[in-house]
Amino acid sequence: MIQSIDRAARIMNLLQGARRLGISELAAALELPPSTVHGLVKSLQAHGLVAQEPGGNRYVLGPALLRLSSVYLDTLDVHARSLRRMYELSQRTGLASHLGVLLGTDVLVIHHDRRPDGSEQMPETGLTLPAHASALGKVLLAHDDDVRGQVLAGELADLTDATVTDATMLRDQLSDVRRTGLATSIEEAVLGDAAAAVPVADQDGRVIAALGVLAAADAFPLPDAILRELRDAARAISRDLGAR
Amino acid sequence: MIQSIDRAARIMNLLQGARRLGISELAAALELPPSTVHGLVKSLQAHGLVAQEPGGNRYVLGPALLRLSSVYLDTLDVHARSLRRMYELSQRTGLASHLGVLLGTDVLVIHHDRRPDGSEQMPETGLTLPAHASALGKVLLAHDDDVRGQVLAGELADLTDATVTDATMLRDQLSDVRRTGLATSIEEAVLGDAAAAVPVADQDGRVIAALGVLAAADAFPLPDAILRELRDAARAISRDLGAR
Repeated sequence: MIQSIDRAARIMNLLQGARRLGISELAAALELPPSTVHGLVKSLQAHGLVAQEPGGNRYVLGPALLRLSSVYLDTLDVHARSLRRMYELSQRTGLASHLGVLLGTDVLVIHHDRRPDGSEQMPETGLTLPAHASALGKVLLAHDDDVRGQVLAGELADLTDATVTDATMLRDQLSDVRRTGLATSIEEAVLGDAAAAVPVADQDGRVIAALGVLAAADAFPLPDAILRELRDAARAISRDLGAR
Repeated sequence: MIQSIDRAARIMNLLQGARRLGISELAAALELPPSTVHGLVKSLQAHGLVAQEPGGNRYVLGPALLRLSSVYLDTLDVHARSLRRMYELSQRTGLASHLGVLLGTDVLVIHHDRRPDGSEQMPETGLTLPAHASALGKVLLAHDDDVRGQVLAGELADLTDATVTDATMLRDQLSDVRRTGLATSIEEAVLGDAAAAVPVADQDGRVIAALGVLAAADAFPLPDAILRELRDAARAISRDLGAR
């Protein structure tokens, strides 16, 4: 690990959490002298990765990240292949759908198709959740031995009373997910919200993403017809990616 | 500038342009030994900023960029304040609208509201264009002395036959933009496409973004009623940001 790149990434992660920070706040969080942090921040700023708050002394994340992330999504085959299928899935089920990949031990939402009822809904693309608290995350953990090992060995944060925080219980749930090809999370991340998710595979049979539908917790268990639509959509995307 | 951060940013920019590159291709582009580039890439990969292509040796941009960029947009007041106004603008004019900020000498689209005719349209958020070839960019150049100086002193790339590549002509156009508060770009970036844009200001009267509508070139000059809707929307956003 090159030290200054590690520090630069940690500065961006701190700004991601806090939104706006001054040099002294960053220096305290990183346990580094302010002059060192200043040099790191100015180097990031020169590339548009962080920006100075207009009329202020604090720093925020920068515009270059948006350009880079739009190319990240463009480069991701599974993203391009999923857009139309997810639109159709939402139309057929009346539910919002989302697509996720692992980012460390979190799940990152890479596409979110809104509930087709015309209501105002927050865009969720770019959001992350601890993988163990989300249906998308459970699908991905079930199929990634390394990350599953990391998660089971670490502390399982509780987001609600229903979050699975016992490693043995989580391990058993993930075995079920592998066997049935279906994960659920019922009020385990946010009270009132629930989701069901299934795997998306690539040409080598690797599970590279999870596809899910979102509904109110009291709509669970979901009708078989909805689960069938969800499985069909994931199968169609996997087929488009070359999976058998 | 801290050298390894500069190099890391250049690696991400190379991946942004080429989508997928191996260590030797990156090393050639950066004129560095492959072992040095390997260390940089692995440090970026450890933070999810780049990723290894599944089943391949090449590298692509990584998922952490999407999480960071979603926080970048959330932190940007002008983005949050514009969403509803742009939706209304598109509904009223029947045209797509977009919102841009400067990123170096380019303009970066930070929000794009589609034409409300139900047709399939590429999402443009995250795209960049040379500022001098775009209506959004001309508004921003007109009001930023530093970046305007840089652009006028450099080479003006021609994207189409209509791109303004003469510095004197561009300087005159930008004076007009400052005077009239309106910029247009007619087939100057893409054949057949045209746009009109106006400034959005913050509480200190600084122009911090440009708001535009997009139409086919043969719809220009746009009817006064549409330009009025555009100006009204930009004024409403500016007012929401605290501008007088």
